Amino acid sequence: MIALLQERLEAAGATVGKRVVLGSGDDAAVTVPGGTTATSVDAIVDGVHFRRSFFPPDAIGHKALAVALSDLAAMGAEPGEAYVQLGVPDDLSKSEAIGIADGLGAVAADCGVVVAGGDVVGSPVLFLALTVVGHTADAGSLVTRAGAEPGDALLLSGPVVGAAAGLRLLEDERLSDALDPRTAARLVDRQLHPRALIGAGLALARAGASAMIDVSDGLGQDAGHLARASGVRCVIDLPDSAIEAGVEAVAAASGTDALDLAAAGGEDYELLAAVPQDRLPGALEAVRGTASDPALVGRVGVGEGVILRGPTGREALAGGFDQVHSRVPGAPT
Amino acid sequence: MIALLQERLEAAGATVGKRVVLGSGDDAAVTVPGGTTATSVDAIVDGVHFRRSFFPPDAIGHKALAVALSDLAAMGAEPGEAYVQLGVPDDLSKSEAIGIADGLGAVAADCGVVVAGGDVVGSPVLFLALTVVGHTADAGSLVTRAGAEPGDALLLSGPVVGAAAGLRLLEDERLSDALDPRTAARLVDRQLHPRALIGAGLALARAGASAMIDVSDGLGQDAGHLARASGVRCVIDLPDSAIEAGVEAVAAASGTDALDLAAAGGEDYELLAAVPQDRLPGALEAVRGTASDPALVGRVGVGEGVILRGPTGREALAGGFDQVHSRVPGAPT
Repeated sequence: MIALLQERLEAAGATVGKRVVLGSGDDAAVTVPGGTTATSVDAIVDGVHFRRSFFPPDAIGHKALAVALSDLAAMGAEPGEAYVQLGVPDDLSKSEAIGIADGLGAVAADCGVVVAGGDVVGSPVLFLALTVVGHTADAGSLVTRAGAEPGDALLLSGPVVGAAAGLRLLEDERLSDALDPRTAARLVDRQLHPRALIGAGLALARAGASAMIDVSDGLGQDAGHLARASGVRCVIDLPDSAIEAGVEAVAAASGTDALDLAAAGGEDYELLAAVPQDRLPGALEAVRGTASDPALVGRVGVGEGVILRGPTGREALAGGFDQVHSRVPGAPT
Repeated sequence: MIALLQERLEAAGATVGKRVVLGSGDDAAVTVPGGTTATSVDAIVDGVHFRRSFFPPDAIGHKALAVALSDLAAMGAEPGEAYVQLGVPDDLSKSEAIGIADGLGAVAADCGVVVAGGDVVGSPVLFLALTVVGHTADAGSLVTRAGAEPGDALLLSGPVVGAAAGLRLLEDERLSDALDPRTAARLVDRQLHPRALIGAGLALARAGASAMIDVSDGLGQDAGHLARASGVRCVIDLPDSAIEAGVEAVAAASGTDALDLAAAGGEDYELLAAVPQDRLPGALEAVRGTASDPALVGRVGVGEGVILRGPTGREALAGGFDQVHSRVPGAPT
């Protein structure tokens, strides 16, 4: 199994890179980092984060690595190496294993990442536990969740909620009737093939973002993480342009609305950044330069928690969002 | 759950260290490596690598980290950071989670390792996927599996086969009747609480070991990995002193013998090192200085594969060992 995976990753050009002195096959991989490293780990499990029943194998590999790399994008780090731990159930076929490896390899090649090591173990359930390492010359160039200041603008690197709508389409094919096939396919693809926005993250870091996070848990949740780490309040007025086309139709057909999906339905992996007002034009320009379509979605205020309003001005209160929606009554927004 | 684990690791003193600029809680951990890094990943899964039914929770956490760090020991790398990915089933109790965290924390504190990040995900089965990072000033000081030369001595850092015997005792309590309770307890402890021989690995690297591997898959298998990577044959004549006390009795009571257990039964995490003859006295001395009890167990020859003979001179052929036992007929040993 290891040899097979290694072969596919080699074919994808994902096993050699300038920082890797010794790759897979010994007790440890040996690398020469670029001064400071950012390291993130992310696991996906069958039945929890994806389902083998409707995720093609390549999408499983793709998603595992893209999701992990998205955390490096959110730091503004240049990705270097990935390490893959694969839990393999008895009934995983050779072609499924090849598909997973090819999905990993495609993302690695696309993002300039070397798969420098891994481990394959037997497991009753398919899982992929990824570790990714990014590099920078100095720690000061990385953007944490903690630097947002009242007055900063809040910027999204691109439209959100598409992945949550795509999941609903995968779970219930009949919902597709509410959409043209092309829009439905695009939403499904947002769920199956998320992108790690490495270029946008680097651009935002260079453009002076004061705090940044990737939208993995839902915009409400993730804005809450950023607000808590920075000791501020995030006030978001989501414009229509920041919600992916087709989302409203899927939400309506499934008895909810786009705003509540935005609050709790994640997996878009767009970046939410706080940017000082004087850096905002440059930041928007820089993100556009990475083929993304950024939107100004709100501002940072004094206080704590998140206010999330949709295009109609309605405030989100639903679902998993409650826990970060700790509005202080009477406090200025 | 994450907060609980974090709290226990903090209590163990396992969350801060000189190389860690930013620990758990942001999108990625930020570290300043020591020039060159050695990175290894290792996953353990309930029912495959341990069983919740007879592994106390602290032993699960202990084993996951010790096993991962053992790979750094086998490179002669100084351990720095660990990243823990935990797959948590619904029925894992709070006290089990605390036990696992305490086991991780104890090994981390013992080995001077910082748990710099992690991920907790839902999973139908309990798993721990570890990533460990070791540091060295230059890549040349690390010892791979590939440098053994014909004529080198083969040295074991301590007696083996205890963990395999301990597993048999855990699986069948009646086997304990063949042993005094203290010996039985020691063998069980070898299985439950393996040690990562960081000090011995560093000592062997400094003493000039030409190749090194940790005995995780069984002496036969691991000698085979070293032989293959180095393009040599490993000829091992296992003295009585290199087999842990009590192993013979357990093997006999369970209808096998110590040699066959040695060939295929692993998890001792002792180090097998090839050492040039002129460095051997210094290497033995250096390993003794780390409170280990090393033994000279064989030598490196021309050819390929492994010859593994027990104290009686009998050659091992059994079980999982066959695949590395590729003796070339008529070639000198």
